[in-house]
Amino acid sequence: MSAPAIAEWMAATQARIETALSLFLPATDSIPARLHDAMRYTTLGGGKRIRPLLAFAAGELTGATADTLDRIGCAVEMIHAYSLVHDDLPCMDNDVLRRGRPTCHVEFDEPTALLVGDSLQTLAFEVLASGPIADPSRQLEMIALLARASGSRGMAGGQAIDLESVGQERDQPQLELMHALKTGALIRAAVMLGALAGKHLSTDEHSSLDRFAKRAGLLFQVVDDILDCTANTATLGKTAGKDEVAEKPTYVRLLGLDAARSYAEELRRDALDTLSVFGERANRLTQLADFICHRQF
Amino acid sequence: MSAPAIAEWMAATQARIETALSLFLPATDSIPARLHDAMRYTTLGGGKRIRPLLAFAAGELTGATADTLDRIGCAVEMIHAYSLVHDDLPCMDNDVLRRGRPTCHVEFDEPTALLVGDSLQTLAFEVLASGPIADPSRQLEMIALLARASGSRGMAGGQAIDLESVGQERDQPQLELMHALKTGALIRAAVMLGALAGKHLSTDEHSSLDRFAKRAGLLFQVVDDILDCTANTATLGKTAGKDEVAEKPTYVRLLGLDAARSYAEELRRDALDTLSVFGERANRLTQLADFICHRQF
Repeated sequence: MSAPAIAEWMAATQARIETALSLFLPATDSIPARLHDAMRYTTLGGGKRIRPLLAFAAGELTGATADTLDRIGCAVEMIHAYSLVHDDLPCMDNDVLRRGRPTCHVEFDEPTALLVGDSLQTLAFEVLASGPIADPSRQLEMIALLARASGSRGMAGGQAIDLESVGQERDQPQLELMHALKTGALIRAAVMLGALAGKHLSTDEHSSLDRFAKRAGLLFQVVDDILDCTANTATLGKTAGKDEVAEKPTYVRLLGLDAARSYAEELRRDALDTLSVFGERANRLTQLADFICHRQF
Repeated sequence: MSAPAIAEWMAATQARIETALSLFLPATDSIPARLHDAMRYTTLGGGKRIRPLLAFAAGELTGATADTLDRIGCAVEMIHAYSLVHDDLPCMDNDVLRRGRPTCHVEFDEPTALLVGDSLQTLAFEVLASGPIADPSRQLEMIALLARASGSRGMAGGQAIDLESVGQERDQPQLELMHALKTGALIRAAVMLGALAGKHLSTDEHSSLDRFAKRAGLLFQVVDDILDCTANTATLGKTAGKDEVAEKPTYVRLLGLDAARSYAEELRRDALDTLSVFGERANRLTQLADFICHRQF
């Protein structure tokens, strides 16, 4: 298997996702223009696109086509983008900076940001339900999987637990439950949706991939917590150090910085171990797990 | 066709929907409990359930099963409930009363209300994508239809136009575009989804039903505008007269009260005319259109 270097593959895939997102998002000159402008402002031109990248890498493992992965990657990214817009609202994190630019409610206004989040969520499901992605039964399975991962027993539920956690002491199992939902569920869904778009996995392979997906989600969060306290705002493109200010429970607060770093390394190794059954087919996922672990932003 | 009186049928169907909603909503004792409690508070125990009733009536026309209509009715009602929770937020209409009780952000808090709306939307798609409702291709078509009706080119888009309209003079075509999206799109979707759950309609029948559905949506809004200025808060279960205070363009403001009433009657007749091709199969829809026109709350 000849694979271009990960950086090159990431750049090409990110560009592909940007084009696909731009096509799926309503045009700025379509009514209501201001809402559509704000949806495009929020979704395009930034972001690491970690979730779509994971979907593409998992799809490579099962031989999914790039056209199908476009829809899956865009749907997952739209759910992620909606969650950021709503999380940044004054009644939540009240944040002014995201992806190096003013947040949606700052650039536009609060009601528009609310509707942007609402509409991006809807569009994610529209994109997954429209167009031929897979056998219709498989496509329904994907929609149900994305819904479970992002609803009150997934991402939104994790956000609710996070709200309740401010100023509270949390032990590691509680912290892991919160993050398994808040960040982990959608990352896990991205991997599993990408894989579902290709050839059927055996039960054992499915379990291995799911274990990888869970570890990757947790790894992402531990590194996020480390970066929140070690990187600066300019590098992150979002407000650094805000977990500390908001008294949010983080891995750094719980374990200390050095132990958090060791934990990230341990999760990375564990994630890669679970991929060994796939051999070279999992090269991209391996490289992405390395990137998630060692990223600086 | 032996049909119980409309009031009796409505009560029985509303009770059925209440039971189905209660089963689809996460239990209050499941984590995160507060979010699930707020989702149930918002969705259960109130509301006229006009949209599910329309879905059931349209499903009766095409011979859909009640189990299938449960999922469709619940999905549409969850989208409606989510839109109410978000519309009531301080950054939108800032309303404190809904269905005779404190609004979600008053009873709980603003971040919880935000997540309740987000999670209800997700659950609507989960409910439509899970369980056997129809042939899988038809089921995908339903999900896409609901998404288009509720997103930025449907209900949420109408809400965005409404925001831009405050304090503006609007002519009747502009007002109708706004309402066709804000209220009409979801009502129309409820009818078409109910019909899709049963036997296939001919192209002509489909067009007739769609024309009925659009008229019914507009009729609902015109009557809503009339009630906002003629009924009191206790009867409505929501704040009366708020359109006037908010300087929102309404049919009463545009046409005057008497002409708005005549327009409602004209819409009702037009809606019923379009049902004539269906004969007695459309009895329920006819009765519901009458109810929507003559309701007092």
